[in-house]
Amino acid sequence: MEFTINQIAAMLGGEVSGDGSQKIKMLAKIQDAKTGQIAFLSNPKYEQFIYTTQASAVIVKKDFQARKEITTTLILVDDPYSSFTVLLEEYHKMISFQKVGIEEPSFIGTNSSIGKNIYRGAFSYVGTNVKIGDSVKIYPHVYIGDNVTIGDNTILHSGVKVYSGSKIGSTCVLHAGCVIGSDGFGFAPQADGSYKTIPQLGNVIVEDRVTIGTNTVIDCATLFGDATIIRQGVKLDNLIQIAHNVEVGKNTVMAAQAGVSGSTKIGENNMIAGQVGIAGHLVIANNTSIGAQAGISKSIKDEGQKILGYPAFDIKEYFRSYAVFKRLPDLNDRLRELEKKVNTVQASADSNSN
Amino acid sequence: MEFTINQIAAMLGGEVSGDGSQKIKMLAKIQDAKTGQIAFLSNPKYEQFIYTTQASAVIVKKDFQARKEITTTLILVDDPYSSFTVLLEEYHKMISFQKVGIEEPSFIGTNSSIGKNIYRGAFSYVGTNVKIGDSVKIYPHVYIGDNVTIGDNTILHSGVKVYSGSKIGSTCVLHAGCVIGSDGFGFAPQADGSYKTIPQLGNVIVEDRVTIGTNTVIDCATLFGDATIIRQGVKLDNLIQIAHNVEVGKNTVMAAQAGVSGSTKIGENNMIAGQVGIAGHLVIANNTSIGAQAGISKSIKDEGQKILGYPAFDIKEYFRSYAVFKRLPDLNDRLRELEKKVNTVQASADSNSN
Amino acid sequence: MEFTINQIAAMLGGEVSGDGSQKIKMLAKIQDAKTGQIAFLSNPKYEQFIYTTQASAVIVKKDFQARKEITTTLILVDDPYSSFTVLLEEYHKMISFQKVGIEEPSFIGTNSSIGKNIYRGAFSYVGTNVKIGDSVKIYPHVYIGDNVTIGDNTILHSGVKVYSGSKIGSTCVLHAGCVIGSDGFGFAPQADGSYKTIPQLGNVIVEDRVTIGTNTVIDCATLFGDATIIRQGVKLDNLIQIAHNVEVGKNTVMAAQAGVSGSTKIGENNMIAGQVGIAGHLVIANNTSIGAQAGISKSIKDEGQKILGYPAFDIKEYFRSYAVFKRLPDLNDRLRELEKKVNTVQASADSNSN
Repeated sequence: MEFTINQIAAMLGGEVSGDGSQKIKMLAKIQDAKTGQIAFLSNPKYEQFIYTTQASAVIVKKDFQARKEITTTLILVDDPYSSFTVLLEEYHKMISFQKVGIEEPSFIGTNSSIGKNIYRGAFSYVGTNVKIGDSVKIYPHVYIGDNVTIGDNTILHSGVKVYSGSKIGSTCVLHAGCVIGSDGFGFAPQADGSYKTIPQLGNVIVEDRVTIGTNTVIDCATLFGDATIIRQGVKLDNLIQIAHNVEVGKNTVMAAQAGVSGSTKIGENNMIAGQVGIAGHLVIANNTSIGAQAGISKSIKDEGQKILGYPAFDIKEYFRSYAVFKRLPDLNDRLRELEKKVNTVQASADSNSN
Repeated sequence: MEFTINQIAAMLGGEVSGDGSQKIKMLAKIQDAKTGQIAFLSNPKYEQFIYTTQASAVIVKKDFQARKEITTTLILVDDPYSSFTVLLEEYHKMISFQKVGIEEPSFIGTNSSIGKNIYRGAFSYVGTNVKIGDSVKIYPHVYIGDNVTIGDNTILHSGVKVYSGSKIGSTCVLHAGCVIGSDGFGFAPQADGSYKTIPQLGNVIVEDRVTIGTNTVIDCATLFGDATIIRQGVKLDNLIQIAHNVEVGKNTVMAAQAGVSGSTKIGENNMIAGQVGIAGHLVIANNTSIGAQAGISKSIKDEGQKILGYPAFDIKEYFRSYAVFKRLPDLNDRLRELEKKVNTVQASADSNSN
Repeated sequence: MEFTINQIAAMLGGEVSGDGSQKIKMLAKIQDAKTGQIAFLSNPKYEQFIYTTQASAVIVKKDFQARKEITTTLILVDDPYSSFTVLLEEYHKMISFQKVGIEEPSFIGTNSSIGKNIYRGAFSYVGTNVKIGDSVKIYPHVYIGDNVTIGDNTILHSGVKVYSGSKIGSTCVLHAGCVIGSDGFGFAPQADGSYKTIPQLGNVIVEDRVTIGTNTVIDCATLFGDATIIRQGVKLDNLIQIAHNVEVGKNTVMAAQAGVSGSTKIGENNMIAGQVGIAGHLVIANNTSIGAQAGISKSIKDEGQKILGYPAFDIKEYFRSYAVFKRLPDLNDRLRELEKKVNTVQASADSNSN
């Protein structure tokens, strides 16, 4: 990144007060900024720093009234925080899209087609009959098996592994070390106590705008023609397990270390917290919110529930029960006390009535 | 795959009704199948599709009576589902065994011997003094450290890492990104609050016919000459943690995200569900069944138990306790009510007896 | 390793009894040792093996009195166990530091500086503007993004991925497949139910003498200039999740599969057991001990607590409550019984008083 303050002001639709010809190379916080960097002032409690900052430019609100001398150049805008966010996003795009071209050695099998404006890092591997769209970034050590398709603008970070036959949509981000399409966990018990491996012949379909976290695993479906499906807009955090034949509905968000067992269908817009476990062959309604570490052992039919516990039930009721759980030894003592008392009362009543 | 219908019928010991000379390239479900594909009909509720399917062939039961005209070729067998499963397995074998040969660049250290009929993918790394059997598949980005041995027919998927000195049996499947033999978690506390690393000098032994899931980790044993051992036929799912010096008994099955702490010995034919945690230095009896998310804090001596909870106990008793847990606020109210009542009765009894 | 017994005795400050000119290649247990190996005898219950061992040398206590003939050479020392530990550590150093030099192909970007005495394995990747200290070991398939710095003596095992901008200290060990600096899980909900990705622009700082376990993930901070920080001496086990903007205090130890949500600050010298989950935006006091599978949903202010449960509270109280939990069906029965009894007593009292 290297723009003049004037160029940045033009981009933000702001007005420059001071020397606009200086060059900006980086963004920073107002209290840390140095020459060549741009900061912003939004929260009044940081105002003090604008009088001492070494930033070459600071984005401030149009009506900002300085109470002391200011040496840095100002860019006056309607909403400094939004303007800074715009710069952050532009900066991020520049960083992530600057990778283009092919580093060697890299491997590409026969009959594979790759779009325009691609990054293929050193030691990346693309198998045979693979179709990759435009502007895809394939970082070093990515493995893409045979017969895979990947849509435009998708980023595969270092060490992502995509097994043969998987289909990945466009504008997805696959973080380092995640694995798409490994074998489902299917074994048939034999009479001698051993297990026979059931061939896993389905695949994985990841729709558009999905993010898959670091070291997360999505297994393929068991049967030929079936798929484990991650619907559009789903966001999966790190170290998540998605078993064979699972479907995760549109725009569902799942936090780190959650796990979903085979053939479960999760609805749309679910919020699934960290370390949640969901059993197999269930159906979870739309807009379900599952609290951290909960265990889900049966289907959720009504939409919009918030649940917790193992097995999970209504989160408020869980907390009410748990409040009593914490006092159980006291409850137990009171019950024992009461039993004695009742026995005494009864004995006395009995003796009275005799 | 490319066989004529006649060839497939011969393989299945079935009889052809129709044109057996057509070529089959793929398997499919009867409702989805297209020209060049073979399907099966077993469940009567799918019978409707046999009259409209585009499949080139359908496997049906010997005594199948068509109620309308059928245009596809039939293969008549005793058990269509079993016959289709045979085809699936053959297909799977063909797919997984088609990879043979060496892709470059790949790395192999000095003094390493590799068997016949091997696949070594591009960017795979084999260290020094390594011994690898016949028909082993080493996918791209696999790392095999020094002094490792690997038996015949074992498959190491992309990005598997095997630390120096590990021993892997034959006919094992190691899924993408799993790690065998990383350092055990051993640190000696020092007077100043810091920790000193205890050198981890043992190794890992994986016996025959073991499956190890994606991104699963098996640490090496601490002491020189000791081993973390995964016995024959064990099936480990994805993202599992097996700590140093653990032994997992023959044919035990462990679901995703379970974790076993150091030096615990797990018996044979255990069924360990997802996200289970097992503490260190325990002994778990054969045929133990541990429910999802359970925490095991003491040894299990009697075989055949089913347990749940943290700490885990009998699963039926857990559910009975949990049923009451859900009504604890009500229990608490009833207890309080009863206390009042008893006080009243007692006061009344006291006043009566006075 | 190849030393004479005399050389080893000199290193340990011990005295040789027998032929000190034989060569030792390996360490072993006294009951397993073979020619060319050295063992030790500390625990008297293993004394029997010294009369039959095939070890070329055995380390024994100065005042050891043989009760039978001994054919192996002895090294007499003050504390055989400590002496053997010294040998183990030396052996471990030799093993781990024997890797030096550059294997090809490996990739290094422009403007990167690498210290002396380095190991760079085949298929390792170093980006641009990277600074790497002396005696660093970079195993095969390691990915180091742009603008990363790594201190002296740090080891990066196979398949470690370090995203751009991360800072790793000296004398750290990063185990296979761990990922440093992947994007924090940050998404802004939109009116249509979809999520917009918030650019993750901070980085990760790992201080000195930190160990990071296999397949563990540490996300970068969200804002530019902020960092997720792992303080010196921290030991993280395998498959752990550390979210964006977390700080883990000096010498804290965390067991496998634990997870920490965004922006939480963990104090020094914490002991965090396996599969623990810690919510976001909390502060955990120094010297906190968190039991396995506990869920932490609020800050811990007082130092030195031991906690368990979800949400976690004092571990002793948890166990007391849990003991009653296991008897809840009985408690429920007793309460019902008592209600009946009280009703009877009350009825009888009422009839008496009428």
